[in-house]
Amino acid sequence: MRIAPLFLNSSRRLLFLSRMASNKVLTTENINPQVVTMQYAVRGPIVIRAVEIEKELAKGANKPFKSVIKANIGDAHAMGQKPITFIRQVLACVSNPSLMETGKFPSDVIEHSKTLLGGCGGHSAGAYSQSTGIDVIRKHVSEYISKRDGFPCDMENVILSGGASESIRNVLKMFIRHDGSKKIGVMIPIPQYPLYSASTEEFGLGQVGYYLHEEKNWSLEENELERAYKDSLKKFDTKVLCVINPGNPTGQVLSRQNIETIIKFAHKHHLFLMADEVYQDNIYAEGSKFHSFKKVINEMGAPYNKMELASFHSVSKGYMGECGMRGGYVEFFNLDPQVFVLFKKMISAKLCSTILGQVVMDCVVNPPKPGEPSYDLWLKEKTAVLDSLKQRATLVKEAYGSIEGIRCNEVQGAMYAFPQIQIPQKAIEKARSLNQEPDFFYAMQLLESTGVCIVPGSGFGQKEGTYHFRTTILPQPELMKDMLNRFKSFHTKFLQEYK
Amino acid sequence: MRIAPLFLNSSRRLLFLSRMASNKVLTTENINPQVVTMQYAVRGPIVIRAVEIEKELAKGANKPFKSVIKANIGDAHAMGQKPITFIRQVLACVSNPSLMETGKFPSDVIEHSKTLLGGCGGHSAGAYSQSTGIDVIRKHVSEYISKRDGFPCDMENVILSGGASESIRNVLKMFIRHDGSKKIGVMIPIPQYPLYSASTEEFGLGQVGYYLHEEKNWSLEENELERAYKDSLKKFDTKVLCVINPGNPTGQVLSRQNIETIIKFAHKHHLFLMADEVYQDNIYAEGSKFHSFKKVINEMGAPYNKMELASFHSVSKGYMGECGMRGGYVEFFNLDPQVFVLFKKMISAKLCSTILGQVVMDCVVNPPKPGEPSYDLWLKEKTAVLDSLKQRATLVKEAYGSIEGIRCNEVQGAMYAFPQIQIPQKAIEKARSLNQEPDFFYAMQLLESTGVCIVPGSGFGQKEGTYHFRTTILPQPELMKDMLNRFKSFHTKFLQEYK
Repeated sequence: MRIAPLFLNSSRRLLFLSRMASNKVLTTENINPQVVTMQYAVRGPIVIRAVEIEKELAKGANKPFKSVIKANIGDAHAMGQKPITFIRQVLACVSNPSLMETGKFPSDVIEHSKTLLGGCGGHSAGAYSQSTGIDVIRKHVSEYISKRDGFPCDMENVILSGGASESIRNVLKMFIRHDGSKKIGVMIPIPQYPLYSASTEEFGLGQVGYYLHEEKNWSLEENELERAYKDSLKKFDTKVLCVINPGNPTGQVLSRQNIETIIKFAHKHHLFLMADEVYQDNIYAEGSKFHSFKKVINEMGAPYNKMELASFHSVSKGYMGECGMRGGYVEFFNLDPQVFVLFKKMISAKLCSTILGQVVMDCVVNPPKPGEPSYDLWLKEKTAVLDSLKQRATLVKEAYGSIEGIRCNEVQGAMYAFPQIQIPQKAIEKARSLNQEPDFFYAMQLLESTGVCIVPGSGFGQKEGTYHFRTTILPQPELMKDMLNRFKSFHTKFLQEYK
Repeated sequence: MRIAPLFLNSSRRLLFLSRMASNKVLTTENINPQVVTMQYAVRGPIVIRAVEIEKELAKGANKPFKSVIKANIGDAHAMGQKPITFIRQVLACVSNPSLMETGKFPSDVIEHSKTLLGGCGGHSAGAYSQSTGIDVIRKHVSEYISKRDGFPCDMENVILSGGASESIRNVLKMFIRHDGSKKIGVMIPIPQYPLYSASTEEFGLGQVGYYLHEEKNWSLEENELERAYKDSLKKFDTKVLCVINPGNPTGQVLSRQNIETIIKFAHKHHLFLMADEVYQDNIYAEGSKFHSFKKVINEMGAPYNKMELASFHSVSKGYMGECGMRGGYVEFFNLDPQVFVLFKKMISAKLCSTILGQVVMDCVVNPPKPGEPSYDLWLKEKTAVLDSLKQRATLVKEAYGSIEGIRCNEVQGAMYAFPQIQIPQKAIEKARSLNQEPDFFYAMQLLESTGVCIVPGSGFGQKEGTYHFRTTILPQPELMKDMLNRFKSFHTKFLQEYK
């Protein structure tokens, strides 16, 4: 900061001062350009405004609604879902081991906690773990996967992380290159979970969108994969295929046959598979079933069972919904051993993921067994959550489906619906005049007039000329009804206003 | 995977098969080159070998020692330090709120926990927080900083993160650019904590090392800063100055005057300051005092109090040593407001840091107050840890200082000593013949023959022709004596062998 020369005339001096005022080392002009261009709609402007409105309401602002309903993010506990007792008992005992002596905890909780503490440095959750995670938890994860798939899983291939997001970002990082050659292309679904678009953008990777087929309940079609791949080669060296199953934001569950098609496609073009399977416990529709990519690849046998695959799981979804704990893992399959060494070196600079997040992951992959004291309550709580989610999945589909100008696919799994809305031409023009995407305009109007916070489809990607929004199915039943009522009344007014 | 053509003759077929065997999508040939070149010595080959040796011992291997002593990493709990009761009680109550009804917890623990749960979505630590962290905790951090420095801190400038590492990496990320222009240069001390070298390498930033003055107890000298800066401009556009105070791995505590010199230097060259102050509670030497950069910049007044500064703190060090909890924060000062918006957008794709890590951060910045039921025990535990660390800081300096061929500066603060060792010429030649750095060779020999795990100085950087190692002062007193004995006996034999 230098002193503004006094001899300058006032307007020149003002200019000088204003330039000085922004005389920062780091400015929007010289900041990492990928930070400018990346977007993460799930926490974008609509959500920022929702938080502001909440604060305004808390200060007594007069609004046509009394609360904000956040259906923007898959955050079950924030929407009133209660934690699973077993998980929280283990967390308490691991955090504060003297509790194990009080006689207030079931014996399996204590045993579980002791095993976990035995895996911690100095028997404390306050010690770092290896960057790969606590060994006994990696072992439990590998046993879970082996049992789930009927194929062996080596615990050495399991790396624990702070949610699945961290693992997904770590895997994508390996494909970065800035040597002036073609960017590596990463195939991601459209619509997609914006972690993928945000991360590929941040890392300077090439985004290759393949459209899901909305009319066929958001399935992946070979023709479309081929088209996207072929088009991508003009710009990128495409090497990665990301699949989200069950789908986010689209709520579909891929059939086994669909997965086979995808695997064959990936094999044909020599692609590295990334399978985001964090909703593997969230299957609702009659006839739908979760098939892991690991399982299908192995069942298909050679040459497919030699393909490179990274698959991801998390404690944030499922029946436990422990988002705030930040637990997750990646399982690698057929990763080049030397690449794996480099991967482990790369993550070592981040030390380790949170021990208590790892502990929650353990409770998820290694829950109480029949006959153990915590089993009955655990099963009851788990079943109640999943049953209720199933009901809400149906309720949401039916409610939105019954509204004029809205079409909603079946929510087969995951935690979201992604309904299509027909936005009247006048509203589209109004949005354009405000330099907004029409569905962004719609979502912002909905928020301002009803307090309902959803995410516009443009944040996930959608076919040109179509408009959608993502809503979670997480509000508890009463709140869900409230939300649907608010939505319906807004939508009717909106159609009238812009018809 | 294609079938190997059978008509090839056997040696050609072998070649084909071996090429096929490594026919991976992702290989060491095409992986992100920065992942190949980055190094993180604190968890490098010596430590990997130490973990292997532990497993060998567990399987009954016959070695000249019975245990591995890990003095490679600042991990207090792993070295037997006990957690602070207050922190663990709050963690238990926040994890499992029904414990608050048992009458077994002090009233301030319960109040503290209720306040924190009130800041959580759905009153559950299982909900995501805003990406910036839970507001009430950010407020407590800002109050802590205001009180510490005597200058106001706006809670909006505080961002919670998974340890300080995550924040440091996030700030560095803003300086990445891959547009073919000069890389941004980041000035880092030599020796330095390898998070900085690993992250600048991973992000493709320019590493600008400035040497600390070993003979003046690792102080920063203006001449050397100027030299490093001037040299760097040939290759880089140098914009960032990182300072670690108290020092890691060097254990020095910067004097107020030294900090002023650094600030004036940074101002002169228009540098963005990053102050890594995670050891702010770890001050041992008579006459040493912690001065935060934020405080000094403000006390210096204009024009310095307009400089951009990011300062970092963590729950991993201090008296609590809760490394596994992954709590930390960055406070920004004078950051360009639009840059701040972009920063917050960037971190939003990672959702949020662990809630329980945030909770521990809260306990650190907002501990029990005099008169509250937990105060006396908290103070007693805190004082005992810091007193014991102080004793060990002296013990380590004296013990190493008394060994022939080793020189060790006073450990004024932090958790490490960084002694210089004179390695005999014959040992240097032996190391070179193995293609190893001499201090790496020394450290590996030490590990294999005594089980003591330290990190060679080459992992932190050191003046050409000098050799060092970093050891923590964390082993508990008995173990520390054991370690020093093992070390001394090894060192004597080593000198004899290679004299």
